Amino acid sequence: MTKKEVSPAVIQRLPRYYRYLEDLMDQDVERTSSRMLSEIMNLTASQIRQDLNQFGGFGQQGYGYNVKKLHDEIGKILNIDKENCLIIIGAGNLGKALANYDGFRKRGFRICAIFDKDPGLTGKTIGGLEVLSMDRLEDFIKENNIRIAALCIPKEFARDLTDELIRMGISGIWNFAHLDLDVPDGIQVESVHLSESLMRLSYKVGELYHNGDES
Amino acid sequence: MTKKEVSPAVIQRLPRYYRYLEDLMDQDVERTSSRMLSEIMNLTASQIRQDLNQFGGFGQQGYGYNVKKLHDEIGKILNIDKENCLIIIGAGNLGKALANYDGFRKRGFRICAIFDKDPGLTGKTIGGLEVLSMDRLEDFIKENNIRIAALCIPKEFARDLTDELIRMGISGIWNFAHLDLDVPDGIQVESVHLSESLMRLSYKVGELYHNGDES
Repeated sequence: MTKKEVSPAVIQRLPRYYRYLEDLMDQDVERTSSRMLSEIMNLTASQIRQDLNQFGGFGQQGYGYNVKKLHDEIGKILNIDKENCLIIIGAGNLGKALANYDGFRKRGFRICAIFDKDPGLTGKTIGGLEVLSMDRLEDFIKENNIRIAALCIPKEFARDLTDELIRMGISGIWNFAHLDLDVPDGIQVESVHLSESLMRLSYKVGELYHNGDES
Repeated sequence: MTKKEVSPAVIQRLPRYYRYLEDLMDQDVERTSSRMLSEIMNLTASQIRQDLNQFGGFGQQGYGYNVKKLHDEIGKILNIDKENCLIIIGAGNLGKALANYDGFRKRGFRICAIFDKDPGLTGKTIGGLEVLSMDRLEDFIKENNIRIAALCIPKEFARDLTDELIRMGISGIWNFAHLDLDVPDGIQVESVHLSESLMRLSYKVGELYHNGDES
């Protein structure tokens, strides 16, 4: 079955819709409207209608959207309607933080294993999982049909490990290492560059003061 | 002194330039060119020249750019040429991961304090810092003229705390809580929504398989 093409800009916004719909469900709100979403999401109502129409549009004139139905439909498109296993490479502070974050499960993700090359860490328990040695990586990926790996390792090792992971069958890299990864066609990378985000904030805060200082 | 206006799109890219220039410095490369940067950064050489021209352009025809000079100039624009103190609110796993990350200092940031409302955590040491009680937040911010706070707390508390922080003098919020923050004009927010990033990756990986499955 082919899914309807959804534009990249809408895809970029879908997780945010999903999050707001989740909040509405938590508040036991059953129906919503483009106007209501527009108020809480800071988008125009027409933008929202246009976005949601792209994948079928469940709004009914005058009735709006069924929150749960819309939430589940977006979940299906995002491929999080069934549980996704992911693995973490690197049991340092960041790997630990991810392994312990319980918000992922709510969004269809389960951390299935965490690996580290440091023998001092293997065997220890993090977030309920035993840290496994890198020797077991390949078998684990293949036996459990793992597609997504979070890279929480220093950048010096990231390129080589990425090549290895791809060879072992990983097709999605969630990259926290401080570099950009070149990957073959068909392999997906999503990078979280924390320092860059902080530098952008620093710039914006600095501008404020510079503009205030002018004299 | 007013700084030259730099377009938001370029600002978005500056931290990435900074990172690549840092890499070149680590490799003892002294000069670079738009062509060399274009190869490693996956941007066109003319895009790079255009970007760097926006803030003065230090390239000389045929000589290219002095890596350190360009790096330092971008650092100045990003407001990271002198040390910025930032504080972390929330000494959970993510707060811990940030406090322990030593890459920030290289980019002009120093974590000056970490706060938590849990009395079980205050007094403990994380990343060389004692976890402070929230009672001490206001004085600390004022005495040390802190501008940036990283929010590593659950979303239920984030809105109220943001209001408090702004009242105490914070003008930049680095938000890791899973919600969008409404802030007054002049206050800057940079959000890192980890789950959204993972959902985008999941979508992209899912597409791959769906397209492969078609039959």
